[in-house]
Amino acid sequence: MNAAPHTARGRFITFEGGEGAGKSTQIQRLASRLDAMGVATLITREPGGCDLAEQIRALLVQGDPGGMEPVTELFLVLAARRQHVMRVIQPALEAGKWVLCDRFHDSTLAYQGAGRNLAGARLDSAEQWARDDLTPDLTLFLDLPSEIGLQRSRARGDAEQRFEKERETFHHSVREAFRQRALSEPGRMRVVDASLSIDALSERIWELTGDVRNAV
Amino acid sequence: MNAAPHTARGRFITFEGGEGAGKSTQIQRLASRLDAMGVATLITREPGGCDLAEQIRALLVQGDPGGMEPVTELFLVLAARRQHVMRVIQPALEAGKWVLCDRFHDSTLAYQGAGRNLAGARLDSAEQWARDDLTPDLTLFLDLPSEIGLQRSRARGDAEQRFEKERETFHHSVREAFRQRALSEPGRMRVVDASLSIDALSERIWELTGDVRNAV
Repeated sequence: MNAAPHTARGRFITFEGGEGAGKSTQIQRLASRLDAMGVATLITREPGGCDLAEQIRALLVQGDPGGMEPVTELFLVLAARRQHVMRVIQPALEAGKWVLCDRFHDSTLAYQGAGRNLAGARLDSAEQWARDDLTPDLTLFLDLPSEIGLQRSRARGDAEQRFEKERETFHHSVREAFRQRALSEPGRMRVVDASLSIDALSERIWELTGDVRNAV
Repeated sequence: MNAAPHTARGRFITFEGGEGAGKSTQIQRLASRLDAMGVATLITREPGGCDLAEQIRALLVQGDPGGMEPVTELFLVLAARRQHVMRVIQPALEAGKWVLCDRFHDSTLAYQGAGRNLAGARLDSAEQWARDDLTPDLTLFLDLPSEIGLQRSRARGDAEQRFEKERETFHHSVREAFRQRALSEPGRMRVVDASLSIDALSERIWELTGDVRNAV
């Protein structure tokens, strides 16, 4: 009798930050370097990452900022996350893939918790449920003054504008929340200066993923 | 100086039951009788009742039963409810209207709580948040053996089939949960035998709404 071949669980790395911080570019860069090492990767994003969750994303990113109740926004984000975690992220990790995800639960705590003032025990309970208690092995917070990020994001003509249209104080609260979260979980969440050049930033990210790579 | 005219808050009456129990017909009947008394009514439904919530409903009622994670289904229902409560139901009640709603929180506790096995403290916390702690003044549970309700519902060719396609044990659990809820909150939730004729049923419902009408 042969035992089933053992596949080591993959690693789960999330990228966080405000609008225009350069997350997508850096995810692509990291995936290329991992692929070159022979590590199978899956690039995905939230809200979204599977059919149903992308349909939910479409509801979230369109329309006016005030068109949606804050708690409705929260529950839509969590509905999308649960589907994504159970149907895409967990199976990929179990198959040994490294999952690189553009936004995850830190965004919920920053945008809906701080930005929408929904922080508290009810939010914590619901958001932990949505992600089935899955926590990233490493989170890279690409930090940038929100004015600069919004300029970049507007310059590229992003069609998903509901959050970009929010007032400045909203974006400041979101950034401050990300920074506080990084301070409170320094082992998991690392702050990266997103005003660096693309090359310098990807080099820094490569260094920061060293521990996760060496742990394999 | 004139004081603003005082408008008495309206009443919130919800109709619950399995598929094909006759809720829509009875809501129309009750609204007609209330209208004839000079009571302004609003007929609405869940999930749905406003643009965004109807878009969420479309995601919920289509596709295969197994296509959606149970917790995703729950959060979609709650996202729709929050929008509906804050933008439609509460404003209507404040304007003095009587709101007659086809399904509300008891359906969540029956379908997602019992049917999907999500009952517990996390569900209670999230569902109370979604409805902003709003509780119906009266809930009429139209009780019918689920086999009969499903036959009726299939006979009328309902296009929203995701829940109808569920196995028989699911529908039995839902009915049992509604009955238990009615037993535990007899003051608010009344059981009505939905196998009565349409006329007899609307007469019974009229009687049961007597206390709410007399309290005005």
